[in-house]
Amino acid sequence: MAEALPQLIKALRCLPGVGPKSAQRMAFHLLLRNRDGARALAAALTSAVERIGSCERCRALSETPLCPTCTDPARDPAQLCIVEMPSDVHALDSAGCFRGLYFVLNGRLSPLDGIGPDELGLERLDQRLGENVVREMVIATNATVEGEATAHYLGQMAQRHGVRATRIAYGVPLGGELEYLDGATLSLAFQGRREF
Amino acid sequence: MAEALPQLIKALRCLPGVGPKSAQRMAFHLLLRNRDGARALAAALTSAVERIGSCERCRALSETPLCPTCTDPARDPAQLCIVEMPSDVHALDSAGCFRGLYFVLNGRLSPLDGIGPDELGLERLDQRLGENVVREMVIATNATVEGEATAHYLGQMAQRHGVRATRIAYGVPLGGELEYLDGATLSLAFQGRREF
Repeated sequence: MAEALPQLIKALRCLPGVGPKSAQRMAFHLLLRNRDGARALAAALTSAVERIGSCERCRALSETPLCPTCTDPARDPAQLCIVEMPSDVHALDSAGCFRGLYFVLNGRLSPLDGIGPDELGLERLDQRLGENVVREMVIATNATVEGEATAHYLGQMAQRHGVRATRIAYGVPLGGELEYLDGATLSLAFQGRREF
Repeated sequence: MAEALPQLIKALRCLPGVGPKSAQRMAFHLLLRNRDGARALAAALTSAVERIGSCERCRALSETPLCPTCTDPARDPAQLCIVEMPSDVHALDSAGCFRGLYFVLNGRLSPLDGIGPDELGLERLDQRLGENVVREMVIATNATVEGEATAHYLGQMAQRHGVRATRIAYGVPLGGELEYLDGATLSLAFQGRREF
């Protein structure tokens, strides 16, 4: 078999969720059916790696030193939402429920994987809270064990700076049917019940 | 959001089985966790598209005009196995059950998708059968409706040239338990029963 082919199959495996069988299928598909797509993908990868860095202020992916969100004058700098991943910013912005600024951790506290406060850029967040502009820190980490631990750490940080910390609500999602929800979500929804 | 990022997400969707959500996850993974992998993938794609063509004789993917299999003197040119995809050659060779040559259709007859005999290079196969070297044509297309139709077409072609045509056996796979097999396979296995 051609030498460039095993190399391509191996390289495709760097994609998340792609094992040896999928990588082989992808390689054959590209070479047999979509060579233009393969060329376009190579160009997009190269250009993305070259051009995309991270925003100096919020750590989101950005082609400029400061990302468009951080430089948007229509956004309220007194509200800062902390999320784990750049995709979370995208999800929240699409929902249109928040008009403040973001801070992206690009991960979550996970000592076993060697991810501590330094890897999440928390020093920069500490500095930013010290600037006395942020009044409310909305913690929007995921509802996982690591996400909760990260939220706890962030809460303590906010307390040190006298900044109000809030956490987004957990419960039954819209359209969710109780019988299909897991027990952990249901007990969170019960614990968080409010006057009706 | 950065402009190179939506472009990368769009380009990743040319991979089979990758929808908008997976493409986004892949893009973020590459940019945040594996930039070296992204660079390597871009290089592998470019080199594969540039270097890999198809073998003039068997239509398999090859970096040389004739693929290593076709030029291997240890293989028996009197036996020709017809498969749908290059990955099938790989699977059969790994199993080590066949020491003849291959002919790769790179598809299957599927008139609705506009795939006819020309797209499968059957003219070249016709020529090859006319050279009077091939004594047995082993038809190893998939056990699908299109695979069967293709096998039927190939069988008629072999008959025209007076070449013996055989079809690989269908039935219960090794280790297969009857209760978990579909009805179609079971009836094929029944139809193909032999003296014990």
